[in-house]
This record gives sequence, C-alpha cells and structure tokens, in this order.
Amino acid sequence: MALYVQKYGGTSVGSVERIEAVADKLKKFKDQGHDLVVAVSAMSGETNRLISLAKEVQETPSPREMDVLVSTGEQVTIALLCMALEKRGIPARSYTGSQVRILTDSAHTKARIQDIDVERIQGDLAQGRVVVVAGFQGADAEGNITTLGRGGSDTTGVALAAALKADECQIYTDVDGVYTTDPRVVEGACRLERITFEEMLEMASLGSKILQIRSVEFAGKYKVPLRVLSSFEEGPGTLITIEEEETVEKPVISGIAFNRDEAKLTVLGVPDIPGVASKILVPVSDANIEVDMIVQNIAADQTTDFTFTVHRNDYNKAEEVLRAVATELEAREVVGNNKIAKVSIVGVGMRSHAGVASKMFDALAKEGINIQMISTSEIKVSVVIAEKYLELAVRALHSAFDLDKVDTVSE
Amino acid sequence: MALYVQKYGGTSVGSVERIEAVADKLKKFKDQGHDLVVAVSAMSGETNRLISLAKEVQETPSPREMDVLVSTGEQVTIALLCMALEKRGIPARSYTGSQVRILTDSAHTKARIQDIDVERIQGDLAQGRVVVVAGFQGADAEGNITTLGRGGSDTTGVALAAALKADECQIYTDVDGVYTTDPRVVEGACRLERITFEEMLEMASLGSKILQIRSVEFAGKYKVPLRVLSSFEEGPGTLITIEEEETVEKPVISGIAFNRDEAKLTVLGVPDIPGVASKILVPVSDANIEVDMIVQNIAADQTTDFTFTVHRNDYNKAEEVLRAVATELEAREVVGNNKIAKVSIVGVGMRSHAGVASKMFDALAKEGINIQMISTSEIKVSVVIAEKYLELAVRALHSAFDLDKVDTVSE
Repeated sequence: MALYVQKYGGTSVGSVERIEAVADKLKKFKDQGHDLVVAVSAMSGETNRLISLAKEVQETPSPREMDVLVSTGEQVTIALLCMALEKRGIPARSYTGSQVRILTDSAHTKARIQDIDVERIQGDLAQGRVVVVAGFQGADAEGNITTLGRGGSDTTGVALAAALKADECQIYTDVDGVYTTDPRVVEGACRLERITFEEMLEMASLGSKILQIRSVEFAGKYKVPLRVLSSFEEGPGTLITIEEEETVEKPVISGIAFNRDEAKLTVLGVPDIPGVASKILVPVSDANIEVDMIVQNIAADQTTDFTFTVHRNDYNKAEEVLRAVATELEAREVVGNNKIAKVSIVGVGMRSHAGVASKMFDALAKEGINIQMISTSEIKVSVVIAEKYLELAVRALHSAFDLDKVDTVSE
Repeated sequence: MALYVQKYGGTSVGSVERIEAVADKLKKFKDQGHDLVVAVSAMSGETNRLISLAKEVQETPSPREMDVLVSTGEQVTIALLCMALEKRGIPARSYTGSQVRILTDSAHTKARIQDIDVERIQGDLAQGRVVVVAGFQGADAEGNITTLGRGGSDTTGVALAAALKADECQIYTDVDGVYTTDPRVVEGACRLERITFEEMLEMASLGSKILQIRSVEFAGKYKVPLRVLSSFEEGPGTLITIEEEETVEKPVISGIAFNRDEAKLTVLGVPDIPGVASKILVPVSDANIEVDMIVQNIAADQTTDFTFTVHRNDYNKAEEVLRAVATELEAREVVGNNKIAKVSIVGVGMRSHAGVASKMFDALAKEGINIQMISTSEIKVSVVIAEKYLELAVRALHSAFDLDKVDTVSE
C-alpha cells in the first residue's frame, strides 16, 4: 500500500483509446490497494492546435491570455480520464491547477510552483478517490491562470509528490526507461535500473530528452524518488534516486549522452584582459542565442582564443554578432564550424575514479577521432568532434566503459 | 458614456475571423467612451465536439466531469477575444466563471447563479479594461466548476448586468431582433422595437428561440434592460423592457408564436373525481416526457376528457404510458393525433382589450381552420390546429391583428 503520483504525457493520453488504457492501468494499481494522484498533459496535438488559434489572432499574444487558452488542453484530459475511471467503478475527481491551489509566481507561460495546498487532495484520497490533476498549470496569488511552460506536467507530478510526500513519482512516457545511450545508435544500449539526479540532469541537458530538466532538479531538491516508465509496455523503468547506490560493482560511467546540431565559433587573438569574456557573450545573449559549452585556454602573447558552441540554427546569427564584436575588440579573426557534435560521458562514479577522462580520450584516439574541444564537470566529460564521427565515437565509448554489459532488465 | 454588458453567442465567435469582427465592434463602443463587460459562448461546434469526446468514453458521464470538460469551450473564446482586443490596442482581461466568482449552486450541467463578486471586474473597468467573461459557467461554494446548461451564456450576461447595474444588457445573436412572427412564414413579419419581458417569455417558450428563457426571467426579476441585436448587421435590435410603453397606439398583440412538432393525446371518459389529473400525469412525467398544454373541460355524465400535448417525438412513448393508465382508471379510450401544431397570439395589450380571443377564432374560422384545443393565459391565447393549416393560420392572424403594419425599422 503506497501513495503514488503518476504523470501521463501527451502521447499517453493522445486519444480516447489511450485514455481508456491509462484508466485500465490505474485500475490495476487501485486494485492493489495503492492511493493514486495522477497528473496529465493535454492530448497530443491539442496544445499545438490552441497555439495555432492564438497565432491566427496575434503573432505574439499576451502571455496571460496564452495561459488562459492553452490551460484548457489539460482540463479536457482530466475530465475524460475521470469519466474513464468512473466507468470502471473507480471514484475519481478532477482538478485544474487553480482548483487544487498550485500556487505559482506570475511569470506567465513559464511560471514556477511556489506552493501546493494538498488538503483537498488528501480529503479525496481518504475517501478512496483517485485524484486527477491538470499538469502544466497553476494560478498566481491573484488567481490568474499560469502555465509552467512546455514539459511542465512533469514538474506538476514531482511537485505533487513532494507536497504529498508520495512514496514515488512515476513518470509514464513513450520510452521504457533511461538508457546508457541512444539505442538507435548503439545496439547494445541498456536500460539503467537506477541513475542519480545529478547524472540525470547531465543526461537530460545533453539531449536524452526524457524528463523536463526542471522537474528533475525539483525532485532532487525535495528528495522525491522519481521513476521513468513506459505507458505502453510493462516494466520497472528507471529509478532516479538521491544518492548513488552502495553496490559492489557500480559502473564508473552511467551513460553516453550526445548532441548533434551543434556549431562552434572561435574568436582568435582576443586581448587577454579582464572583461573580455563578457564583452563577447553579452551581445550573443542579447541576440537571444543560447550558448552551450564555453572554452578558453591560457593566453600566449597577451592574446587568447575564445570558443563556444551554439545550436546549429543559430550559427549564422552568432557569427554575424561575433564579427562586430571582434572588430571592436581588435581580435584577429572569427572562425567557426557547424558540422560538429558533442559527446559526453556521465557518471557520479567518475568522482572517485582517476583516469576516466584519459580512458575516454584514448578510446576516441584509437578510432582516429580528433577532439576539437574539451569541457568537464564533476560528473561529466564532454568533447566536441566532427559530426561524421558521432556514431562511431558513441559506440566506441559505450564499449570502452563496459556499458554493453549493463543488462539490468531482470525484474 | 454607459456601462454595457454584451453577450456574443457561438456563431458570433465561431471562427477567428468572427472573433476579430467582434473585437472591431467592441472597439467602436470603446472609442465612444463606453465601459464594456463581455460574456462569450464557446466557438460554435466546440461544445458539441467536447460532448462527443465524453460520449466516446461514457454514455452518461458524471455531470461534475462534464462541466470540467465543456467549460473549456468558453475559456478558449475569452482568451482569443482578449488577444484580438489587445491587438487593437484595447486593454482587456479574460476571466473564467470561477475566476470572477460566479457563484452557483452545485447542480452540475444546469446550475443556477446565486451571486457574482463584481469587485475585480469593477477594478478592471476603472483601469479602462474591457472585461471578457466566459459565459455559461461558474463555480459552486467548494470551487467545483459548474455550467448553467445550454444557452446559459445569456444568463451569464444578464446576471453580470444585474450585478454591475449595467445600463443595458445587449445580447448579440444571428437575428436582428424579435419579430412579430417568423419571417419565413409571413413575409410581412416586422422587427419589434420593444417587447415586455412577459411577452418575450411567452414568445420564447412558444418557439421563438432567440433568448434562453431563464435569462429573460432573470432580466425581468432584476429589471435589467435587455436588447437583442444582430452580430452581423447594424441595427437597434429589440429592447425587452420591464413595462409596456406608454404609447398612444400600442398594438394589442405583439406577435404570433407557433410550434410545429406537437402531438396531442386524450384520455376519454375519465371518472370525474379528485386526483385523476395527477394519476394521468405522474406516469407521463416519470417517463421523462415533457407536457406542454393541458386541457380539461367540465364533466358530463360523471366522466370527463383529459387532453394534453407533447413533443411529437414523445408521442408513441406517451401513448403507451396512457394506455396503461387508462386501463387502471377504467377510462373509456385513449385517442391521439401527431399531426397538429400550436399557434398563439401574445401581447400584454390583450389584458385590457376584450374580444381578442374572439377576433382570433373569427380569423381562423374565416379560413376554414378548425380549432381542436384552446388554452389561455393573461397575455396569450393558444390554439391547436391541424398542422397543414399552420402557415395559413399564422398569416391570417398576422393580418387580422394589424401586425403587417408594425414597421419599426426607423432608426
């Protein structure tokens, strides 16, 4: 007997048939005696339909009205799911974000949850009801409807789990867990039984887009055990935990993340004086270009080279901005390359293991892959390589770190 | 400078183009310096789409969840209309029924408004904003979303006008006013400049389905001047007022209402003892059959005949119920006819004018139309005739009461 908060995303509730399937799944848990609080997204396609309607009216609609509009998507789902539950004889109650008092700040379209009043939910649970809450939305102190931004339904699930002190927050998605790397690239990629929040954060930001990053941060902060499972297949999924497990043979590396669609830009011969980095990056950020890796090496001859990566779509815009900056800074030259990719090894295990980076570089060298940039964090080493080597690099690293053997699908 | 509450129905906001047209209309009023509160329906088709989704899940869904579902329809409209207003430089704020605290009872899908907290709306008006409120919906004391039932957006408009003490509640529809009768039947049918609430009630219940009947009752009770206008054409519409106007030449009759799709049933030879009427009608109402006219004449030979009309679709069901009742009551026979129609003359003027009924019967007799049933109220005389005479009867009465001359389109 446990209290589970479960979250079902847009594809999991994408049609009446899928909603019925979710109701069947919930019935199983209920029959086992568990208490259930369910956060749901809008039916897939619905949010985009609503946004298109808004765009027909106005290119950049008021964020407040945008939230009033798109929040209807989840409201439709909660009602339909409750009907499907009641059809199965399971008492259920639906709530919008504002009804269940998911208090957020007033940053429309990207609000942050500040508090949840769980009294009403607890009352329903005590009466044996399944509580179905609209994900992705809340209300500010004045009662204005807010949304948490794309992927915010995950955050709703985690916040509900934290507020209710749930035994587990279970995120149902279209994948059956977190893998050591993309199975489309490495055939031997394995589902991880566990991963730490920190590792998950590094994996998420590197392109393993299973969970919204903010929800993982939130879960880590409030120590909510988070599980990623498939809506469509049975299986234990992957548990995201607070601390690494005390196992005898913890692998050093949990997974290989990678990112195509990167581009790098370098300003050569920048004067090595304080304030140069911000003089380069402020105009880039003012142009709404998101910067990923940043690398600057030590200076030689009073000048240095400053390199960063951006999304490939932003390459031309960034180059234009940089040329202006370079002239101003009297830098030598701006060079770039938009045919690169980033590959990262991620694992809390590397904290205590020396030689992880050298093992990585060695594995790449053996395949003749040149490393163009390196950047590291406590639990991650990222390299930039030519895009054409991406798959080769990922497979080589997956083998080098013995991930092909991590078969945990045993339950 | 006035405060208008305006209500736009589903066809008036049926597409983004129509919503833009409503925004243009509102801008004109705003430019004239008026304060505006707007109640809107769901875009036409949307409510039916949502109901279909629900029916896919469950034949008779929980009324509470039904309200959560269908209330999203108006929520979409309020957001889009506010965007369209802001695009035109008009500050606007949207509110759902629950946000603006339209307090209702808990009778889901057919709730009644109990109170409206206008403080927030007044604050917005004071700041020059147009306030856009989702029609048709509210919330009960516990914050559950409720709906007022089909046509409830009219009631929202009237209730807002009453609570705000608005100068006028203007209901924009797809007709340009209330007519003396259906212009499709009588070419000379004229738009009325004014009509009383009582007359409007009789007209509405008799098939001139322009306004939801409950909203007219509500407007009459709270003395809210109500105006029916066209969303699509310019014009003054029809004003529905509290008392008949003190004009020199007030016509005795305001309009001719009629209803096809009627059927009548008679139980012949019913014992003339107390309680018989309810013994006949209770089983009918238990079978969910709505009864319209009821006529019982004085008894002869200790028995009487009891006749009532129902919707034609209910004729067979009602007949079946009556046969059982007739046996039980030892009545002589059940006879019926499902090819009848009802025609009524309506007007507060008839209160003080004798001979209105006889003029009506005379006009029908001159056309050779036999009257099968008669029923009267203070401001209405209704007759049942063979359906085939319906148009002929309406035209004859329209002429007999000089309605062909009521041309009020003068502004």
